[in-house]
Amino acid sequence: MAAIAFHFSPPSFCYSSPSLQNSSYSSLSRLRFSCSVSSSVPQHGGRTGFMEFPYVSAPHKDLMVDLVSTVETRLESFLNPCNLPPDVQSCQNSTGTAHASIHLRSGVQSSVIDFILGSWLHCELPSGGALNITSLSAYLNSSTDAPNLLVELIQSSPTSMVLILDLPPRKDLVLNPDYLKTFYEDTHLDQHRQHLEKLSEVRPYFSSSLYIRSVASPTAILVLIETERLEEMIKTHVSPIAKEVLKTWLDICVFGERRVDETEKAYLKKRDEMSKSKTIEIDLGSNLPRLFGHETANRVLEALREVF
Amino acid sequence: MAAIAFHFSPPSFCYSSPSLQNSSYSSLSRLRFSCSVSSSVPQHGGRTGFMEFPYVSAPHKDLMVDLVSTVETRLESFLNPCNLPPDVQSCQNSTGTAHASIHLRSGVQSSVIDFILGSWLHCELPSGGALNITSLSAYLNSSTDAPNLLVELIQSSPTSMVLILDLPPRKDLVLNPDYLKTFYEDTHLDQHRQHLEKLSEVRPYFSSSLYIRSVASPTAILVLIETERLEEMIKTHVSPIAKEVLKTWLDICVFGERRVDETEKAYLKKRDEMSKSKTIEIDLGSNLPRLFGHETANRVLEALREVF
Repeated sequence: MAAIAFHFSPPSFCYSSPSLQNSSYSSLSRLRFSCSVSSSVPQHGGRTGFMEFPYVSAPHKDLMVDLVSTVETRLESFLNPCNLPPDVQSCQNSTGTAHASIHLRSGVQSSVIDFILGSWLHCELPSGGALNITSLSAYLNSSTDAPNLLVELIQSSPTSMVLILDLPPRKDLVLNPDYLKTFYEDTHLDQHRQHLEKLSEVRPYFSSSLYIRSVASPTAILVLIETERLEEMIKTHVSPIAKEVLKTWLDICVFGERRVDETEKAYLKKRDEMSKSKTIEIDLGSNLPRLFGHETANRVLEALREVF
Repeated sequence: MAAIAFHFSPPSFCYSSPSLQNSSYSSLSRLRFSCSVSSSVPQHGGRTGFMEFPYVSAPHKDLMVDLVSTVETRLESFLNPCNLPPDVQSCQNSTGTAHASIHLRSGVQSSVIDFILGSWLHCELPSGGALNITSLSAYLNSSTDAPNLLVELIQSSPTSMVLILDLPPRKDLVLNPDYLKTFYEDTHLDQHRQHLEKLSEVRPYFSSSLYIRSVASPTAILVLIETERLEEMIKTHVSPIAKEVLKTWLDICVFGERRVDETEKAYLKKRDEMSKSKTIEIDLGSNLPRLFGHETANRVLEALREVF
């Protein structure tokens, strides 16, 4: 799910940097490879580095810190520690133009959590300026059929941001209207999308990948925000909505009890696996080499295939 | 599928006529009840009446006639005649403020066609002006898993129209990426949506029903067109695209051969039935009485449940 990000590549970014147009950052956030770290970029060791969000504005950082802290506080007893090596928790490419931090915590076996994943990416653009992406996603395991969580903020200029905020469903909604009712209608999730839709600075955004579009829920917030007052927009509109969606996910999806029989478990496993493998293929197949070179890309793809 | 229409109720219509805000016209097009026909409205007997599209502009009528003719010509050997009684093929409400025509042809048993359905509705609005909806939809049976067809033009004012143009999938696309590739990627259907997206008079439209949103494909054209030159827009942009989408549906979905085994057939039957019954429930439950009164609504609902 976190892989949705690059497929909603902001137009301004696409146009200014065609070679990165279809690149796919979010996949980075699942990597288990070690990146080399040069001395030209400030190093952020371990957990501290991830929570620093050093390249984004204060309201953007505040939001991400709040979301990650909320998840980790409420799910603390469900989560294993992040056991990525420090040079994976903070890494960059060989030229120092891309810098990323990854934070991954798997769920303990008795929990409903598969893993949670936080990340940020800073990438200098050939045209000048930079791309900054921050994300938080969470995957549940097959002991529940409840939706996953996806939050991503993709900023390609000081005045332009793509916001992705969704609880992607884990069942076919056409065949499962009760599931739709429980997780999307009764939770009134669409009110947030409607709120943003009314703002003149906001318009719908479409992923270039049809598969990624298919993965989204009917209440998914997939929008492009263009404004001279982006920080204010984050504080006033994006943050309250993201916090509300996270609260819904925690209350209803994580802590709402679901009964899943063996047939359903097998179905969920199959669908989750398909969704993850397709997302990796779409994200990394052609995009990762553009950001990190072929050698790293191959190492990453191999490592990822082991994980999934 | 045809039932999507009213859930994409144009804002201008919604605002001018709150009582009809959630009404659902498309369902009318599936009715088997006989409507009383008063002398105050021109009567359109049988087939001629349906193909007249008497309340819409010339380009709008031309498009609908072209689409229906194309479908009936290419599928002629697959279709039974329309056997609705004349007073169902053209009907209206007791006050004469709503007038509709319905054209339904089921598929012959050896074909892949379940039924095709054409319709138009003219409805006077309390605020003055009128709502005009025209639609063409086609449902395939479980001998194929190929997508259905849906075309609807919903005009609530001389300068405002909602266009719905889709090949709604009949499988969960997340679990079936090959299906997505065959019917949506390889057919380049998204180019049409992208073309419209670039026009300043066009913006995305969201159904008020989350279920109806779930039914749509990732390349669905669900847009609101607002312009003083609506007829020109239909001629220049809407018509060519609608004809292309129909051609894709005929070539790839109807005449593209698909192998469906017994397990898949059972799945398709279940999903199709769920989709149809939910659509009826959403469309007609509260909306039909608003347009035709409770007595007619009940008769219609009973008749519909028999058909589906």
